[in-house]
Amino acid sequence: MIHELEILHRLLPTLAMRADVALGPGDDCAAVEIGGDRLLLLAVDQLVGDVHYFAGRTAAAAAGAKLLKRNLSDIAAMGGTPAWALLVLAVDGRDADWIVGFCRGAADAAEAVGVALCGGDLAATPAGSGVEVGSLTILGTVGRDRIVRRQGAKPGDALFVTGEFGNSLASGHHLDFTPRLAEGRFLAENGFASAMLDVSDGLLLDARRLADASQVHLTLDPAATPRRAGAEVPGALGDGEDYELLFAVPAARAAELERDWPAAFARLTRVGAVEAGAPGVFDPAGENLQTKYRGGYEH
Amino acid sequence: MIHELEILHRLLPTLAMRADVALGPGDDCAAVEIGGDRLLLLAVDQLVGDVHYFAGRTAAAAAGAKLLKRNLSDIAAMGGTPAWALLVLAVDGRDADWIVGFCRGAADAAEAVGVALCGGDLAATPAGSGVEVGSLTILGTVGRDRIVRRQGAKPGDALFVTGEFGNSLASGHHLDFTPRLAEGRFLAENGFASAMLDVSDGLLLDARRLADASQVHLTLDPAATPRRAGAEVPGALGDGEDYELLFAVPAARAAELERDWPAAFARLTRVGAVEAGAPGVFDPAGENLQTKYRGGYEH
Repeated sequence: MIHELEILHRLLPTLAMRADVALGPGDDCAAVEIGGDRLLLLAVDQLVGDVHYFAGRTAAAAAGAKLLKRNLSDIAAMGGTPAWALLVLAVDGRDADWIVGFCRGAADAAEAVGVALCGGDLAATPAGSGVEVGSLTILGTVGRDRIVRRQGAKPGDALFVTGEFGNSLASGHHLDFTPRLAEGRFLAENGFASAMLDVSDGLLLDARRLADASQVHLTLDPAATPRRAGAEVPGALGDGEDYELLFAVPAARAAELERDWPAAFARLTRVGAVEAGAPGVFDPAGENLQTKYRGGYEH
Repeated sequence: MIHELEILHRLLPTLAMRADVALGPGDDCAAVEIGGDRLLLLAVDQLVGDVHYFAGRTAAAAAGAKLLKRNLSDIAAMGGTPAWALLVLAVDGRDADWIVGFCRGAADAAEAVGVALCGGDLAATPAGSGVEVGSLTILGTVGRDRIVRRQGAKPGDALFVTGEFGNSLASGHHLDFTPRLAEGRFLAENGFASAMLDVSDGLLLDARRLADASQVHLTLDPAATPRRAGAEVPGALGDGEDYELLFAVPAARAAELERDWPAAFARLTRVGAVEAGAPGVFDPAGENLQTKYRGGYEH
């Protein structure tokens, strides 16, 4: 048990920020001022063997690529463009081929989106532990007046998602996904999204985070939520590792968005609406979906 | 065994950089263009329980502070000013107090030098493993024409160090050290240092890295090397975890440096000279010090 909520609750209010920190902890990325009209986006994420991939079975390159792509998804959620990355790896009992394979997997996924892997560190975990932990820091940029946060959804907005949900592990999607960078940038640059996040811990849990950050009541229709092959409704709402975008769009622009959404993009689906009321996620009949479908993948 | 040299040798030449990467892997920090006259410095370092601190004995806050300060030492070595940090931690079997303590230790050490801890991630290592790995990304800035690298030392330069060396573990210095930020900035801003790095893996090993990067022969006088209390010559040359600066200074400016060195700074000592010749580290009699004192702390 890592008591994440308790820890964040105790820690975050005590952190001293600087005047140049435009956005501190609590969103998909932090954002800091670097002069000019663009903010620097920063995010970091970890990948633990036998937690986030099968240490004995997943190809090293696929694990490394997953680590990079998880971080790209965080940049996508802010409407940003990724630029640079730093990779660290702590391993025990892996040969040079495996380690090089892991790093190359991350480097190839980075190169595919124009990101330079420009630093890192390699360490050993205690001998015999067999534990391996990778961590990647992604940096990117976004226009100061284009950044999209988790807060900002307004009553009356429509709620959309990219892609499909559920059955990520069995389908291999958890390794094979495409971060929604183009989609996130399109939404930000055209001012469509009033709030956005990436769905990695299950649609309901992440929807709740958007509801909390924006202080709104979300209506989400489980029947309208697109499901990945093999996924039932509970899995689509709670499985996690979807790496899709969930975002709110002012109602007056929803039809324009649906009309202008490029055909090459991931599927776009309107799944609900933003309403005034206590933060939470409810079905169209008013039932609390977090009570109905317990779950969500906290790791 | 993590085969670090083989891995770097296979991996680094294959990494695709971007035009805005001013300095890629291989120095204490990477540096990237962000517009304007300052470069963004990036570094990441890890701290593994029972490798870099005693998991059962070191106070959580001291371990967290060490992780932050190790990274500050990398910024110091480039002559930079640290600004922002991201912290990740993967643990097993730690309670919320320990985790908050670790993060607060890092946050307090950050605040002490004006750095904002503005993001992070918390994960679990496999249950029962007891393995804990922390990782911290530091970001800072440095003037484009002020950055100091490992390469750049020229035959004729004098070789200097800050502080003292050896016996870091038993003396507690490995937790208690002060990163040489003011000293590094002074050297860079006044153009004293032609090359510099932070000594964390043992003076000889790090001196060899400077010699390799600058393609020079270094003469280093073991008798002139300042020793921490309790350290003998072999320990001063090889123990590691000193977190001091090693740097080359054009001979014409060495006396000026010694005269202008602020009294509040760490002790300044001239320990040798830079000469033309095959890269390596030799004593004044011409003996290869790496052959004479095997060691250096690779982790």
